[in-house]
Amino acid sequence: MAGPVTRTRGLRIDGADVRGREEQLATEEPLEIRAGDRRLAVTMRTPGADFELAAGWLHGEGVVTGPEDLRSLRYCTDADLEPDERFNVVTAELSGAAAERVTGLAPRGFVVSSACGVCGRETVADLRALGRTLPEPDADERLDPGWLAGLPEQLRARQEVFDRTGGLHAAGLFDPYTGTALVVREDVGRHNAVDKVIGWALLGGAPSLTGTVLVVSGRASFEIVQKALTAGIPALVAVSAPSSLAVDVAREFGMALVGFVRDGRITVYSGEARVALPG
Amino acid sequence: MAGPVTRTRGLRIDGADVRGREEQLATEEPLEIRAGDRRLAVTMRTPGADFELAAGWLHGEGVVTGPEDLRSLRYCTDADLEPDERFNVVTAELSGAAAERVTGLAPRGFVVSSACGVCGRETVADLRALGRTLPEPDADERLDPGWLAGLPEQLRARQEVFDRTGGLHAAGLFDPYTGTALVVREDVGRHNAVDKVIGWALLGGAPSLTGTVLVVSGRASFEIVQKALTAGIPALVAVSAPSSLAVDVAREFGMALVGFVRDGRITVYSGEARVALPG
Repeated sequence: MAGPVTRTRGLRIDGADVRGREEQLATEEPLEIRAGDRRLAVTMRTPGADFELAAGWLHGEGVVTGPEDLRSLRYCTDADLEPDERFNVVTAELSGAAAERVTGLAPRGFVVSSACGVCGRETVADLRALGRTLPEPDADERLDPGWLAGLPEQLRARQEVFDRTGGLHAAGLFDPYTGTALVVREDVGRHNAVDKVIGWALLGGAPSLTGTVLVVSGRASFEIVQKALTAGIPALVAVSAPSSLAVDVAREFGMALVGFVRDGRITVYSGEARVALPG
Repeated sequence: MAGPVTRTRGLRIDGADVRGREEQLATEEPLEIRAGDRRLAVTMRTPGADFELAAGWLHGEGVVTGPEDLRSLRYCTDADLEPDERFNVVTAELSGAAAERVTGLAPRGFVVSSACGVCGRETVADLRALGRTLPEPDADERLDPGWLAGLPEQLRARQEVFDRTGGLHAAGLFDPYTGTALVVREDVGRHNAVDKVIGWALLGGAPSLTGTVLVVSGRASFEIVQKALTAGIPALVAVSAPSSLAVDVAREFGMALVGFVRDGRITVYSGEARVALPG
């Protein structure tokens, strides 16, 4: 059973100083919520308080209106679940009235199909099965750490709406050759900001994203890495920390994943071959 | 057509100093994405670059794989759409191959049902139709602004996983009588953290949430206000800024919505009758 914190190796680059460090990441794993035999939703969450999460989710959807609607909550014990899937499926047994309200609910969050059960490992395998790949790293086109360290500031400088409201996420596509932004978009939703810049390219802004760097204003979650991968973007820079699953997916596909960018320092979690290491 | 910034009135409270100010909020409005006649998804977004958002979303879902899959994108011009709905529906005409890929897609994001078209006004009306209400404010139980200003620090002090990873959202339920937290939960997803604390109450933690204050570590979006409302929580404190739709919903239901809490200052956007104003 995964805990809320996952330990991994990262490469901290600060000017000419490079050192491998143990990093602690917030764990991100899928949780599938079922009512009886019916799969209702998959949400990417940090393990812990899973029964509370399932109960709260069912309440928010209007299925459960009070404690009397929840007969039981349990982890799935299907024999066909792998050990690392068992604590990622919560099944609710509902009262008759609540079970009826479930019938009106559309299934949600099944972006990545999965035969039975869910876990991070399987989520990564599903992306592989969809045929997602990234171009091989080119030794002549490595990314400069000093330039990467300055990208959040470049992004921030182009956030017009944030300046006025203080409350927006941003995503930008950057060109390592010119060093500047191709496009920056803002949105109340992190994922929307990323969809907007990828949609910009698709609608004629850029014929290919294989040489670009995606920069996001917040954290790097599974969903953001998945979107970058689907668009063929080989490098992702997050101002803040990545999740465990974001790092797992980036490593599987050789995406450069850079996080915790501040004060000229960066941490490389994946795809070191795409970064020009000092010295 | 709504712009990315919405102007509204807020009440800035800094110690004994209270003043009404014009505040600029990031606009949040629903966008419905259609392929031909089929409604695929509703996402809460900041207006602007809507065609890019729709194109990027379709690409991320694997429906659109290149520019040739998108024959056209247009705002909906159904005669039965109200003026403020027209720019909240984008319709894509797809190539034959892409249209076939749509058939495998489950509809998403239709949490709040809506007959035709979507807009903030209608979203609020839908919540009213679902019978959501909050208890009337009690003049003897007004919330102390100084205490509200200290809640983000109390929340932060209980974020154990954040301290180690730097990458987690948190939500907490606070009791104005004791002044302390009933429960704090962390998650990579903002909405999950809120579901966890509401689920905690439902599973026996608290018989009723009508006297509690929900505190969230980030911004207040529509989704967070909706979850608080559904749980009967009359006051929401966000460390950062609220969106326009978060404020609209809070006002409609008389929820106290407090944002931009820093350095002892708070801004009250809604539900002033629940706050003990100085002087």
